[in-house]
Amino acid sequence: MKPLLLALLTVLPASAALAADPEVPYPEGYRHWHHVKSMVIEQGHPLFDAFGGIHHLYANATALEGYKAGRFADGAVIVFDRLDAQHAGNAVTEGARKDVAVMLKDAQKFAATGGWGFEAYAGGDPARPVVGANAATACYACHTSEKAHDYVFSRTRD
Amino acid sequence: MKPLLLALLTVLPASAALAADPEVPYPEGYRHWHHVKSMVIEQGHPLFDAFGGIHHLYANATALEGYKAGRFADGAVIVFDRLDAQHAGNAVTEGARKDVAVMLKDAQKFAATGGWGFEAYAGGDPARPVVGANAATACYACHTSEKAHDYVFSRTRD
Repeated sequence: MKPLLLALLTVLPASAALAADPEVPYPEGYRHWHHVKSMVIEQGHPLFDAFGGIHHLYANATALEGYKAGRFADGAVIVFDRLDAQHAGNAVTEGARKDVAVMLKDAQKFAATGGWGFEAYAGGDPARPVVGANAATACYACHTSEKAHDYVFSRTRD
Repeated sequence: MKPLLLALLTVLPASAALAADPEVPYPEGYRHWHHVKSMVIEQGHPLFDAFGGIHHLYANATALEGYKAGRFADGAVIVFDRLDAQHAGNAVTEGARKDVAVMLKDAQKFAATGGWGFEAYAGGDPARPVVGANAATACYACHTSEKAHDYVFSRTRD
């Protein structure tokens, strides 16, 4: 007879086998949301190991209002969509997706981390959340520097 | 008495003084459209003089269907939104807008240029179209290389 864990892994989808549903769900449909801004982080940048590549920020309608107001209402979702940055021929083009990081505002539920829940999906795969219970140290610790802007680093532009 | 042209320039807005309304209008609201992809064109690239900087492509709903089909229906609009690329601290960030270039599909009206009308607005200013009657040489001549993809260079990605 198979050990129980192996048996579960055989019959369950990856997303269900090892963790409960993440508190910050994969942001379905975000590729149609408002594109806020983009940036390329290159080798030598202090954040290269964590955030190297080209990233795009997307905001749902509630988050877009939040950027304007400087405070974000519950339900605001901001996506940090990171792709490999391919340098060739004096151009930078987009490669494979590295991860899809998400901030979800729920002032009560996530009171311990500034009202924001944090998650990141490796490779953009909804079945591979990588933050889980580590949001306070892995995400919020840096975001505290932006307390005056409701813990959000990015700003909108025209 | 002022010469007529000077008098006109004094009383008319810039958009009305020197040209009729452009055939390819400024794409109002495009910043909320679907973000197709992005690229950075750097010094040394053969297209740097014309297209250097960071650019984002946006598609309206009809154009997004066109990307999937490989053929674009009348009404499809694709925007090439070009910003200055600022290189500093091993990062590339977005600077001021250089221009907003537009393709509008109308197979009959623009039959001479592959069914597409072309325009570009300097600085993203609706009052400063810069292509006008030069679309065939300034735009379409290069786009003919993409005839098999309905004259569109870009492709969608996830």
